Amino acid sequence: MDNFTFHNPVKLFFGKNQLAALPGELSAYGKKVLLLYGGGSTKQNGIYDAIMEELRKVNAETEEISGIEPNPKLSTVRQAVEHCKQEGVDFLLAVGGGSVIDAAKAIAIGAKADADIWDIITKKEKPTDALPFGTVVTIASAGSEMNASSVITNWETNEKQGWSSPLTYPKFSILDPTFTYSVPKEQTAFGIVDIMAHVLENYFHHTSNTPVQDGLCESMLRNLVETGPRLLEEPDHYQYRETVMLNSVLARNGMINIGYKGDWGTHDLEHAVSAIHDIPHAGGIAILFPNWMEHVLDKQNAARFKQLAVRVFDISPEGKKDVDVALEGIAELRKFWNHLGAPEKLADYGITANHVEAIADKSVAAKPEYGKFKILNRQDSMEILKASL
Amino acid sequence: MDNFTFHNPVKLFFGKNQLAALPGELSAYGKKVLLLYGGGSTKQNGIYDAIMEELRKVNAETEEISGIEPNPKLSTVRQAVEHCKQEGVDFLLAVGGGSVIDAAKAIAIGAKADADIWDIITKKEKPTDALPFGTVVTIASAGSEMNASSVITNWETNEKQGWSSPLTYPKFSILDPTFTYSVPKEQTAFGIVDIMAHVLENYFHHTSNTPVQDGLCESMLRNLVETGPRLLEEPDHYQYRETVMLNSVLARNGMINIGYKGDWGTHDLEHAVSAIHDIPHAGGIAILFPNWMEHVLDKQNAARFKQLAVRVFDISPEGKKDVDVALEGIAELRKFWNHLGAPEKLADYGITANHVEAIADKSVAAKPEYGKFKILNRQDSMEILKASL
Repeated sequence: MDNFTFHNPVKLFFGKNQLAALPGELSAYGKKVLLLYGGGSTKQNGIYDAIMEELRKVNAETEEISGIEPNPKLSTVRQAVEHCKQEGVDFLLAVGGGSVIDAAKAIAIGAKADADIWDIITKKEKPTDALPFGTVVTIASAGSEMNASSVITNWETNEKQGWSSPLTYPKFSILDPTFTYSVPKEQTAFGIVDIMAHVLENYFHHTSNTPVQDGLCESMLRNLVETGPRLLEEPDHYQYRETVMLNSVLARNGMINIGYKGDWGTHDLEHAVSAIHDIPHAGGIAILFPNWMEHVLDKQNAARFKQLAVRVFDISPEGKKDVDVALEGIAELRKFWNHLGAPEKLADYGITANHVEAIADKSVAAKPEYGKFKILNRQDSMEILKASL
Repeated sequence: MDNFTFHNPVKLFFGKNQLAALPGELSAYGKKVLLLYGGGSTKQNGIYDAIMEELRKVNAETEEISGIEPNPKLSTVRQAVEHCKQEGVDFLLAVGGGSVIDAAKAIAIGAKADADIWDIITKKEKPTDALPFGTVVTIASAGSEMNASSVITNWETNEKQGWSSPLTYPKFSILDPTFTYSVPKEQTAFGIVDIMAHVLENYFHHTSNTPVQDGLCESMLRNLVETGPRLLEEPDHYQYRETVMLNSVLARNGMINIGYKGDWGTHDLEHAVSAIHDIPHAGGIAILFPNWMEHVLDKQNAARFKQLAVRVFDISPEGKKDVDVALEGIAELRKFWNHLGAPEKLADYGITANHVEAIADKSVAAKPEYGKFKILNRQDSMEILKASL
């Protein structure tokens, strides 16, 4: 393993009726709570009312900003920051999935900063303080609720920027699998793709002596492969929702990758795609990841792909070359994601050969190379994108 | 799974030369640092000098209390508490393994309490504050460095009491596998037994839908079974020490048992043994655990034992009854521990049939039943102890 520092102070409440923990947790902070959420589903499915009931128990002065979009926008963050500064908000409560929580992280920092939040996100300025914030998770996907990471999109410059700070850990996160019952089929499937992709981004590395981390990653992937199709058949099944929600947190709370760093090249490339074309993140990932795998696979690294194929997809390695076992595994992954309903080609989002150059440019706009398991450049982006058309 | 709350704020520094993090971490606390350690090995192996060098960098006023014993004594804790109160200590730095760290947790609470620390440990009084403390780990075993748990022995009453508080998480823990190079062979082996027992205590439960947790436990156990004998052959092998140290933390930081509660009956019974006979904890565990397994195994729960046998010890289940596969697995575990050098019988510590009644009494002194996977009473204690003679 490599040396590592692990510090994740998020307090997690997981299970049925865990919203009851909200009043107790809020008592450590001030009265003025700004609720952040996305579309109307939070109101339709009753979660909004349930949260308001808990907030009334501590006599919270509640304000709200709704309409936080998927791939949350810098402009939305800036508006919320202004609101926090003007109104003297004490605490942010993010209700939703990765997008709302990612926005909350930026708003929390921005509300306590003199600098513009984009300058902090792009590391021109350093954050010094943050509003405290908590989360109530309503979709299992990003796992943003138990880490400090955030992705914000600046549509003025077509940049989608990942960033983090030790100040952007939620104080607490409440995860009730029943809150995800009403997530539509397509978003549920995309959540599963996203979680698996987070595990896979970590799984591809060259660091030695990580059998425990490998075993954890493989258990998670198997668990999702088994549970995913069942959940799409029975969206109100508690254990299936529980499984997906648990894996979403574990995939991104830093435990599966202690002692090594994952690749994350496919995420970088997908961010380049969706910085130009506003497509669902997991849709882009489902298309690009198997093509990334086929692109980087070679004789030297085939053992890693083979291990995945054998241990997660039960491919028999008997009498086969490593590379062939690896390719079977990649095919199984693609088939599994497509079976869940995820797209296979960029054309499904109207992205064609005409768009490839611009996306490839974007993928290396910030730095000429990306990825870690295999370091990629603009030419690699071009090849992966063309294979994905 | 069951509902759960997970909150582990310990900051972990793992790897070579991570002691360099000490000055930076200490800067948040006061100048007066009380060093706590056990015997002379900390001075002999150079760790003491290395720590003092780091402490000088922040101009710490250093005091020390050495001689903290295995199975740390209440009397030692009380003396250290008095010292902290009189001298106005700002920070405790525990250097050692579980015993020193467990003592530090009690001293940290006692130093800020008006009540006697034993009254807090035995839940007659509530803790309200604690001195901040950090740890430098020199033996991989208890995993106390990344949790809030502690065990203190009161030799006035022959009670060995486990306890914890949200106030007793270390602020940071520094784990450098090279610091464990000089741990003698027997203690290294006992560490491996102890870590495996912590995983096994968690592994035996009846909660449904825990395949990821199962997979993690099984990966850890396999990793230790593979590495243990190699490490005893090559005590200065970095990766082997790293493996054991990583598993020691993971076994006790709360992640492997999210969503369910383990059994811990064998630990309760071992505490009854070592409250009367001052034997090494892991020695007691190595003797008792396989006998606990054989005692509680039945047709209804055999599948769990079988899973362990198949997935950790590679026992073939072909054409065999579950119970027989289970028994093969238990035999493998016992063989593995004995091969490492752990004792097989209580007689190895001079404990005979004459002592059994008193230990059985002690095992149910606090409450008439214990354990969770299978609830045990005094009669069960008698039978497990007799099988262990």
